[in-house]
Amino acid sequence: AGLGGIGLDTSREIVKSGPKNLVILDRIENPTAIAELKAINPKVTVTFYPYDVTVSVAETTKLLKTIFASLKTIDLLINGAGILDDYQIERTIAVNFTGTVNTTTAIMEFWAKRKGGPGGVIANICSVTGFNSIYQVPVYSASKAAALSFTNSLARLAPITGVTAYSINPGITRTPLVHKFNSWLDVEPRVAELLLEHPTQTTLECAQNFVKAIEANKNGAIWKLDLGRLDAIEWTK
Amino acid sequence: AGLGGIGLDTSREIVKSGPKNLVILDRIENPTAIAELKAINPKVTVTFYPYDVTVSVAETTKLLKTIFASLKTIDLLINGAGILDDYQIERTIAVNFTGTVNTTTAIMEFWAKRKGGPGGVIANICSVTGFNSIYQVPVYSASKAAALSFTNSLARLAPITGVTAYSINPGITRTPLVHKFNSWLDVEPRVAELLLEHPTQTTLECAQNFVKAIEANKNGAIWKLDLGRLDAIEWTK
Repeated sequence: AGLGGIGLDTSREIVKSGPKNLVILDRIENPTAIAELKAINPKVTVTFYPYDVTVSVAETTKLLKTIFASLKTIDLLINGAGILDDYQIERTIAVNFTGTVNTTTAIMEFWAKRKGGPGGVIANICSVTGFNSIYQVPVYSASKAAALSFTNSLARLAPITGVTAYSINPGITRTPLVHKFNSWLDVEPRVAELLLEHPTQTTLECAQNFVKAIEANKNGAIWKLDLGRLDAIEWTK
Repeated sequence: AGLGGIGLDTSREIVKSGPKNLVILDRIENPTAIAELKAINPKVTVTFYPYDVTVSVAETTKLLKTIFASLKTIDLLINGAGILDDYQIERTIAVNFTGTVNTTTAIMEFWAKRKGGPGGVIANICSVTGFNSIYQVPVYSASKAAALSFTNSLARLAPITGVTAYSINPGITRTPLVHKFNSWLDVEPRVAELLLEHPTQTTLECAQNFVKAIEANKNGAIWKLDLGRLDAIEWTK
């Protein structure tokens, strides 16, 4: 889990739900947020490691070795890093798509059944734009379509890997991410404004439904978290 | 257009259909193939430029400047570079997804209506795995889902850019690409074999339907080219 817009509220809700440990991986340390999380539920051990999802699989593996050594088991990995800026094509793809693939690839060494691992659960934060794109940000939307497709494949690989997976697809949520962002080639300079004219949800609503999805723990589920609702949607083609 | 499995047969069919010019962009020059294309229809001027889709937008722009200067107009861009090898995560994403985005981004400078350009048409070769993944190659499938989503967004941007777009989604086609390839983390070592147990189509069947799709020239179409058939499919979510 991370400390971004949806990330911080989700971490708060996760801590309330009372796991033994919560490991926060994010690019930038935020000691105030970590202290707050620790105060919410003193029974939960909250730790932080700096992590940039754009590093190589090998580097992620090294970090995971440290974490697994200190925790013994990890039950759930949440891939939640995301950027929304279609001026930055390579970075959007690296963070939103490749980062999720590489982090997942790295944890398989520790979890995969075929390697004697205990299995695990992956929750990937994708987006409703994965199946219903915001066409003014075609690169962002496509990167989310990719993350969603990858997650659906992971779920179908569960019998082989022992690792289950589901996707968390928030609709428009009032986070710093959507407050101001660039469209592809400036095709729509007012894209952020136009987007926020639609009905939205708060990060708290989204986070509470996120925890419900975690508790449901349903391999292959495509969770849509929009307008304060939580719905499992069907994938049709 | 390129000179790969589906690419070469498609180039043959395009030359037969008789455009004024055909520019082939591919990583590796194949003088025999170029000579053959020239011989099929001497009225078509066939030229070749070496091009690797993983270069930057700036480098692609430089190449396009040269091509536009020599041809004056280009009517159709086919983005067809693709690799199938889930051992190579970064390269799969760079070729199948980022390459398509960057080449498209580069040509917009020459085509976009808002910049006084004449518009144009983009045909992106995606794959049926974009909406119906081969889960043993989740990275490949996701990269194709991304290319498809991007293409659908491009089509919706046509009123702003003046550039229309459609996707060409081949099913399993008997090309060198599918003869032997690696699954993600070796989840299924026999993936190529298993895939070829399904009914397939020839590259010629695929190429002939590709040219029909080019002639139909339908903005936003999601063309499925499978088992020797050509069908426009609907995107549902």
